[in-house]
Amino acid sequence: MLNHVNKHHIRVAQNASGRSMNVPVYHIKGQRPGPKVYIQSSIHGAEVQGNVVIYHLIQWLQSLPICGEITLVPNCNPVGTNIKAGEYTLGRFDPVNGTNWNRGYHYDAAQVMAFADTVTAEESTASIKQRFREHLAKAISDKLASPWGLGLAQQLNLRLQQLALDADYVLDLHNGPVSTRHIYIPEYARESATAFNFPHCIFIPNVFAGALDEATFCPWWTLTEILNQRDNRDLEFGVEAFTLEMGSQEVIDFTEGEIDAKSILSYLTVKGLLPESQIQPLTMPRIGVMLKDYKTLFTSWGGMVEYCAKPGEHIKQGALLARVLNIDELDNDKGSHDILAPCDLIPMLHFPSASVLSGTQLYKCFTNYFELTGA
Amino acid sequence: MLNHVNKHHIRVAQNASGRSMNVPVYHIKGQRPGPKVYIQSSIHGAEVQGNVVIYHLIQWLQSLPICGEITLVPNCNPVGTNIKAGEYTLGRFDPVNGTNWNRGYHYDAAQVMAFADTVTAEESTASIKQRFREHLAKAISDKLASPWGLGLAQQLNLRLQQLALDADYVLDLHNGPVSTRHIYIPEYARESATAFNFPHCIFIPNVFAGALDEATFCPWWTLTEILNQRDNRDLEFGVEAFTLEMGSQEVIDFTEGEIDAKSILSYLTVKGLLPESQIQPLTMPRIGVMLKDYKTLFTSWGGMVEYCAKPGEHIKQGALLARVLNIDELDNDKGSHDILAPCDLIPMLHFPSASVLSGTQLYKCFTNYFELTGA
Amino acid sequence: MLNHVNKHHIRVAQNASGRSMNVPVYHIKGQRPGPKVYIQSSIHGAEVQGNVVIYHLIQWLQSLPICGEITLVPNCNPVGTNIKAGEYTLGRFDPVNGTNWNRGYHYDAAQVMAFADTVTAEESTASIKQRFREHLAKAISDKLASPWGLGLAQQLNLRLQQLALDADYVLDLHNGPVSTRHIYIPEYARESATAFNFPHCIFIPNVFAGALDEATFCPWWTLTEILNQRDNRDLEFGVEAFTLEMGSQEVIDFTEGEIDAKSILSYLTVKGLLPESQIQPLTMPRIGVMLKDYKTLFTSWGGMVEYCAKPGEHIKQGALLARVLNIDELDNDKGSHDILAPCDLIPMLHFPSASVLSGTQLYKCFTNYFELTGA
Amino acid sequence: MLNHVNKHHIRVAQNASGRSMNVPVYHIKGQRPGPKVYIQSSIHGAEVQGNVVIYHLIQWLQSLPICGEITLVPNCNPVGTNIKAGEYTLGRFDPVNGTNWNRGYHYDAAQVMAFADTVTAEESTASIKQRFREHLAKAISDKLASPWGLGLAQQLNLRLQQLALDADYVLDLHNGPVSTRHIYIPEYARESATAFNFPHCIFIPNVFAGALDEATFCPWWTLTEILNQRDNRDLEFGVEAFTLEMGSQEVIDFTEGEIDAKSILSYLTVKGLLPESQIQPLTMPRIGVMLKDYKTLFTSWGGMVEYCAKPGEHIKQGALLARVLNIDELDNDKGSHDILAPCDLIPMLHFPSASVLSGTQLYKCFTNYFELTGA
Repeated sequence: MLNHVNKHHIRVAQNASGRSMNVPVYHIKGQRPGPKVYIQSSIHGAEVQGNVVIYHLIQWLQSLPICGEITLVPNCNPVGTNIKAGEYTLGRFDPVNGTNWNRGYHYDAAQVMAFADTVTAEESTASIKQRFREHLAKAISDKLASPWGLGLAQQLNLRLQQLALDADYVLDLHNGPVSTRHIYIPEYARESATAFNFPHCIFIPNVFAGALDEATFCPWWTLTEILNQRDNRDLEFGVEAFTLEMGSQEVIDFTEGEIDAKSILSYLTVKGLLPESQIQPLTMPRIGVMLKDYKTLFTSWGGMVEYCAKPGEHIKQGALLARVLNIDELDNDKGSHDILAPCDLIPMLHFPSASVLSGTQLYKCFTNYFELTGA
Repeated sequence: MLNHVNKHHIRVAQNASGRSMNVPVYHIKGQRPGPKVYIQSSIHGAEVQGNVVIYHLIQWLQSLPICGEITLVPNCNPVGTNIKAGEYTLGRFDPVNGTNWNRGYHYDAAQVMAFADTVTAEESTASIKQRFREHLAKAISDKLASPWGLGLAQQLNLRLQQLALDADYVLDLHNGPVSTRHIYIPEYARESATAFNFPHCIFIPNVFAGALDEATFCPWWTLTEILNQRDNRDLEFGVEAFTLEMGSQEVIDFTEGEIDAKSILSYLTVKGLLPESQIQPLTMPRIGVMLKDYKTLFTSWGGMVEYCAKPGEHIKQGALLARVLNIDELDNDKGSHDILAPCDLIPMLHFPSASVLSGTQLYKCFTNYFELTGA
Repeated sequence: MLNHVNKHHIRVAQNASGRSMNVPVYHIKGQRPGPKVYIQSSIHGAEVQGNVVIYHLIQWLQSLPICGEITLVPNCNPVGTNIKAGEYTLGRFDPVNGTNWNRGYHYDAAQVMAFADTVTAEESTASIKQRFREHLAKAISDKLASPWGLGLAQQLNLRLQQLALDADYVLDLHNGPVSTRHIYIPEYARESATAFNFPHCIFIPNVFAGALDEATFCPWWTLTEILNQRDNRDLEFGVEAFTLEMGSQEVIDFTEGEIDAKSILSYLTVKGLLPESQIQPLTMPRIGVMLKDYKTLFTSWGGMVEYCAKPGEHIKQGALLARVLNIDELDNDKGSHDILAPCDLIPMLHFPSASVLSGTQLYKCFTNYFELTGA
Repeated sequence: MLNHVNKHHIRVAQNASGRSMNVPVYHIKGQRPGPKVYIQSSIHGAEVQGNVVIYHLIQWLQSLPICGEITLVPNCNPVGTNIKAGEYTLGRFDPVNGTNWNRGYHYDAAQVMAFADTVTAEESTASIKQRFREHLAKAISDKLASPWGLGLAQQLNLRLQQLALDADYVLDLHNGPVSTRHIYIPEYARESATAFNFPHCIFIPNVFAGALDEATFCPWWTLTEILNQRDNRDLEFGVEAFTLEMGSQEVIDFTEGEIDAKSILSYLTVKGLLPESQIQPLTMPRIGVMLKDYKTLFTSWGGMVEYCAKPGEHIKQGALLARVLNIDELDNDKGSHDILAPCDLIPMLHFPSASVLSGTQLYKCFTNYFELTGA
């Protein structure tokens, strides 16, 4: 093997038996300097496919020349992975209090503004970058040191964020319930859409809702805007962060995992980490949508649902999305009820169970979508 | 419509708000006398596809001439259907105590022996049949009237069994986790295997484990054996009961439901209930297995699993069944581990989640299977 | 009975069997006009004691002369009440997605500002009050009519909020895990602290986190501040809202329920609804704390915990709060570990299970508390 | 310390991250030979108090002269301990399939009969005992070596049973939901009732339902009966096994734990393991009941329940056990409903949540109980 993989474990929690719950951290340092990359998977415990993607990435990265460093953290949430409820994995939230495992990362806009005050109009990009990283690192370790403690999900998130803080490129690997491939991209990094092989791209604004990608790009985005506006500069820090949704949860598929590994390798190639890599992004149709047009369809009915529209299909307004069976009316024409598309749309994912209460998130859909051009 | 569908609801439980939990009972009485049939679905709350099958059956049965009576009870377990745990349905057992919803039906071998003592060698089949039904009905209502009460699952089971008690043919509609079609058939009714369109048939002995099919046939089977042996008679009561496993849980599929509805209609046709029906059993390969050869493969590893062998596939001894990812060894050749078939087998179903602890039921498989001949 | 209780049911959800989930609404209209009161209980399904309190209130209110109207909604969340997970009730959040059942009420500060623009400096309090209520009602019904639907918890919250919208006084009855009595009071209604018989009072600022009390007072508070500052007026709309925490969850106690019913009756007496009531607030010590000083202690250890400090006890800095058993070190002096109070404090509640992961919310505590004076 | 505590860990399972789940095994070998004792706790994950009892036992046993050997296994089910569902621990059954964690131990009556055939009328007790232990050990290791694997609960149970197999005295430490102290005693060991300080004793027959105490005594009991009857001998193997129910689940209490530790030490003293111990069984009233008279009261109502009768109270026939609130009838005399004692009884435990569906196990009660005489 060309590259040695350094492996260690970090403790992210302690279970009720008092045992440590550890996460493996794989680290590969290239022969030459270059950007730093951080990739994690399975912060939501049932979204396991990213672990296979990391498996394939590690196979490739051991034998490719590398400029830079890559940190890979599979199965980054050992609590979430191990909470079964029936045959499935209750991995999206803390079973004790309902806290989503992907909402407790650190971002504090006020702190960014205060930091901006310490930057002079003459300070170099490199210097700002280094000082800001130190600032963020301190903010996180201060939070972790709180004398009153922190909740489990937040502790977990902050310990992972510490690993990600130095990275220029952060990839958080997720899956949807029953889902087709899509990727979340900050609006300013729109050009990177064509560096991956994702057919569906969601462009998100500078708004923080607690996730790792946002926690990564919001500070830099906000700082850039403040300084460029204040000092009329043209600073770019080059930090990018993405959430990759790579198909359905509860599934491991080694073959599909290779496809996504190549997609990530092509991004790394574009970003200059893999100087001899032949893995280029595919020429393929890509569809984009602004986050505000990525809509959730909730059912107003409870019942048993056939998901007729499949993720990735283009559905016209008024076409059939789903049929709901009504078990009390099987002998008359109310025995089933059609749910129709409220507008032209492309479902990205649907709920994974046929049994739904009213108010269940049936589908998440692209509306007002557009074709991306580029590679 | 040729036939009127009579519909009423029965109360099977009361929830913590003190509200009744009701089950719809659809009943169709034919123009002419004939056998009685009882069909229920979704005793396991996540196994919902039987509800669609009943929907299709009701459509057909409204317009076909019928000799006999058919009772259809969809969604027969409103408690199980409505327990969500995460996005999935925790429908196989009572969430309070783990009791499987399909293990509390009534059968008491000692009572059957006592009843046999009341039968003379001259009593007619019809008379025995009627008296035995009354005996069973009394045993169940006595149990339900216990001054100390009964557990929820048992109450539910017994109330459904009361509806099924008069039937000659009892069909309990289930689904597997991720599954292909298979059917449980009592050994004595082996010929009925060719009246359905199920490619995989499991023949079960006269052993009671608590399920509805067993609770239906065990009393008659036991009584028949006792009397025939004791009096050297050749009595046949003609009661049959089956558990139909019609594909995967958590799924509603109207098109697949029609296939299974036709399979059931062909059984009813063979049994004489549908004198003008054109729906005959298909000529198709059918594979049988004795229950003792229907084996469960448990994993001795915990990890993340790709289910490489698909339900229905013929797998040779030593061939790949599953691959387990080991997230702590992604940088070396222990990163994945193959699980091989311990003998020639056909998987019927596999676990629905990639995340498994050691001791998880990975696959249930036909071994020592054989081809069935007949229609 | 002096007063007739009007009862109807509203549908708040539909379950997976397609059945309506209803909530009872009890309404009592007094002989004379007066303020309107809205009282609900059990929005968190395991916090059932409020239902007993409403039971007692209804007994009293049937025979007392009343000026005004009182709406009582027990068991207002039939979904939460009925989700069992093991023997306990998983009632704090939607089991599908982790959404806290008490975080989806409506408040939109921007809308309040826009409404303020429509108010002239001359408009009367009564007119503003009526128009603002209409405005809020429309905002909520618009939200409920969204063509893409709404999540289950939000639907439930908004339908309850519609019932509460006309009320001058809103009481939301809760329980803590293992808890002593405490009450949340908006800072501006501080004087009402002495109208209830709660020994512990938390004063909260004008910040919206999604709960019913906040959703009730934030709009009026914000509107008052805007108008009074802009027009130099001294408007008071007199709307008050409280969250009453009345002891431990998972418990029904008829005797304790009477104590809390009297506490509420004494508030209603003070507010003029019960002109002939003899039920006056008790003279008793009351302790107050500002919300920012109501602190959560998270454990940094996983293990098995004895909660040595009891809710309501005054604990000195450095005194023993809890002991954690370490099952791997029972043979040495690390077998148990003490958790000490980081400052003087009064625990209001502690976690209800001995088994805790790291990051579990062990205690919620008053710090920097003070004595209240008054009645 | 007089005695050294030997500690090691055994692996009982592997979680979905592929990590071992270990159980600590503490072993103390006395200065002189004597009986062997096996004590485990927390096979049901929420029943944690036994861990404290073992903590206290280890403190005592380190300084007392011992004849024999004692193995102590706290927290013997790390899977069950760590499954949270809401704030509580879902520890009674495997969350995947509902299997009770205390039902998978090994006992095979047919094997015992076959073994009995190998015993001659002249074989000594010691020789039979040794050979039978080897026989049982082989049966269990054969089972564990099954090429198709075993379920998680069964694997766990068998690995613990391997540790218990050599013991003369086996104590399995449990808790009830909300419970007072009681103990399960095999009928033949009735005299040991007075060696413990348990006020309530349940005498159980030679019937196997899967629990550790039964799995321990059933083989010896059955073998004794076969051989004594066949050969007209008077063999006694002296193996005893008990299930100790020491109060309520979800609770750690160091002071109460000392009481139960002393109760166990007094049993060990009586059995000769602690020659210099001053800890004698208390003189106290003890009440006994035959297992068939230990009855479960199920509710036929769903609703919200106050448990008026407390565990340990003597309740007369017709007296109040519980009151059920009916939230739909709070305005009339059906607002609450009394549940009365069907006969004279002593509740041992009640359900831990006020919210119950119909068919919930409200109380378990001694009926037809009697006073024990003796120490």
